[in-house]
Amino acid sequence: MFEYDILATDGAARIGRFHTPHGIIPTPIFAPVGTAATVKAMRPRDLAEMGADLVLSNTYHLYLRPGDELVRDMGGLHEFMQWKKPILTDSGGFQVFSLGDTRKIDDDGVTFKSHLDGSLHRFSAETSIKIQENLGADIIMMWDECADPNDYDYQRYSLDNRTHPWALRCIDAKTRDDQALFGIVQGGVFQDLRIESAEFLAKLDLPGYAIGGLAVGETKREMYQTLDWLNPVMPANKPRYLMGVGTPEDLVNGVLRGVDIFDCVLPTRLARHGSAFTLGGRLNMKNKKFERDETPLDPTCSCETCRTFSRAYLRHLVKSNEILGHILLSIHNVHFLLELMRQMRVAIAEGRLNAFASDYLAHYPLPE
Amino acid sequence: MFEYDILATDGAARIGRFHTPHGIIPTPIFAPVGTAATVKAMRPRDLAEMGADLVLSNTYHLYLRPGDELVRDMGGLHEFMQWKKPILTDSGGFQVFSLGDTRKIDDDGVTFKSHLDGSLHRFSAETSIKIQENLGADIIMMWDECADPNDYDYQRYSLDNRTHPWALRCIDAKTRDDQALFGIVQGGVFQDLRIESAEFLAKLDLPGYAIGGLAVGETKREMYQTLDWLNPVMPANKPRYLMGVGTPEDLVNGVLRGVDIFDCVLPTRLARHGSAFTLGGRLNMKNKKFERDETPLDPTCSCETCRTFSRAYLRHLVKSNEILGHILLSIHNVHFLLELMRQMRVAIAEGRLNAFASDYLAHYPLPE
Repeated sequence: MFEYDILATDGAARIGRFHTPHGIIPTPIFAPVGTAATVKAMRPRDLAEMGADLVLSNTYHLYLRPGDELVRDMGGLHEFMQWKKPILTDSGGFQVFSLGDTRKIDDDGVTFKSHLDGSLHRFSAETSIKIQENLGADIIMMWDECADPNDYDYQRYSLDNRTHPWALRCIDAKTRDDQALFGIVQGGVFQDLRIESAEFLAKLDLPGYAIGGLAVGETKREMYQTLDWLNPVMPANKPRYLMGVGTPEDLVNGVLRGVDIFDCVLPTRLARHGSAFTLGGRLNMKNKKFERDETPLDPTCSCETCRTFSRAYLRHLVKSNEILGHILLSIHNVHFLLELMRQMRVAIAEGRLNAFASDYLAHYPLPE
Repeated sequence: MFEYDILATDGAARIGRFHTPHGIIPTPIFAPVGTAATVKAMRPRDLAEMGADLVLSNTYHLYLRPGDELVRDMGGLHEFMQWKKPILTDSGGFQVFSLGDTRKIDDDGVTFKSHLDGSLHRFSAETSIKIQENLGADIIMMWDECADPNDYDYQRYSLDNRTHPWALRCIDAKTRDDQALFGIVQGGVFQDLRIESAEFLAKLDLPGYAIGGLAVGETKREMYQTLDWLNPVMPANKPRYLMGVGTPEDLVNGVLRGVDIFDCVLPTRLARHGSAFTLGGRLNMKNKKFERDETPLDPTCSCETCRTFSRAYLRHLVKSNEILGHILLSIHNVHFLLELMRQMRVAIAEGRLNAFASDYLAHYPLPE
């Protein structure tokens, strides 16, 4: 279990197969996010039809509602949400640390107020692992601190007194053999801290490693730079997961730098705001110019939405705030990222990822 | 075109096939409502998979947004919403007359304010037909007045000066041969007016007839009584459509009394409020008692929702206000009514509708 077979490489990029109790995760892969045990506006069969192989769910949200013990008693997350392929849960840390003034962090854990009813709760390494064991995902994440990426002193303190000690406590707390616990490299935008964190965690010989604390306030250049530092340091024979990322250009830049797994709420969140991915940019489907546009949302796309409906109809749905608008744009946006990952897998297999990436990224110029 | 073949009868009930440009409508049938050119939270393929054969759309809503001329220019409603089976549009009257103080009725038509932006508009027989021709449904409805069913004097005046003269104007205004114009019998809860209206319209030899002005304030007993009066008077060789009805027990009582076509927003509206049809009553899926209920919503139901998900999961989705909750309950509720119609078609074919109905209606006792 949890072997990672690397089938091909192309520069830093790899094609792999990560073995889990619910099947093989082909990499590089994008995981749609099902925060509350549902990828918003999508049925499990919709996700399966478009070739999703991994879904992420949020520990913080499920702990609060419906409760991780309830999910456990209902047979675990796969049975509860009827998604029978692999699932990854985060540690809950990112959501809790994002609560702002209503949470209080110490070296043991964090006390926070529920965003639902204001009730007081406490998470620690042991709590996070216990909840994730109740939820029963195939991949679970260590409890880490997601701190300001630009504050060196805080990052230094956090690595030594929180993220690294907490990693050890997570390993101790873990009781299930059918879940892969991934470590999370922290250290902000600082090369020495990132390398130190990666090396510390590598020694623990975990089945996979995430890169945390990115896409939270640093620039894209800093994100890519951090990946470049980490590529030679992170264990080559373990899957690498860039948490909370996201945009088409970040997926390409991540794969180029050896990242295997991504997740992000962006495709479904954009959909609910009436926005659709296309190569090089997003279409705001509320735009008047689509009012009488009989062409598909994206003529190059093979998703059900683009195969079936016109821009004029999608605009009407979005303007009318119809649920079907959310459904159809979610299908398109998630499919768009899954298809990009498939194209990159093929490009890696054929040894032409650099050419693919430079063509693709020409549509996404980096801001100066 | 627009032949109505009656294949079998059982008492007043009939099995029929109504021929339209977009295929045959098997009767008795329930039509889900797609107000704004979408049955809320459902894709056309979802509807097709569960065996829907007719969808209703609302002229008032589509006239205001996106506009009937836009729909026409996009190829008509079937093309616009990608529903390739038969569609029925109402006249717009019911919605306009429901606007209350913001509309002004006279013997020629009605002036009203848009619920979207307050702008002033006017509908008449000619406007309604023109809009419905632009939308391009297979069945279109005459422009009638939907008045207080309990006010004899108003109903008398309305038949003589509005509904009946407007029927003649609709026939004159109609230019398309590929749309069936249905007449609408009015007259409230009054036997003489209902019979007079049915006889007046029957002479016009329209391809189908609706019973309007019910389910708007009269009791269920009055509704069924009205159907009993009309059954011997309405042309037996034309489909009969009971507008805006709705509940499982009303569908059974309607079919028993010779009704062939029904439509209602109820299944999708209930779904969005977290409520699900079951035999004999509705389940409020927010109810705490479903919190850990691993059984299907309705163990006797063959819909995708009941085949796939637990009550505990559905409750979680509804409590969390997740779009997937709306989707899955809409699938169940629409399927529930479609399946009831299928069961009644079989019962009629086998000459046992009375037995079926009395078993079924035992679960729905009439209030005293």
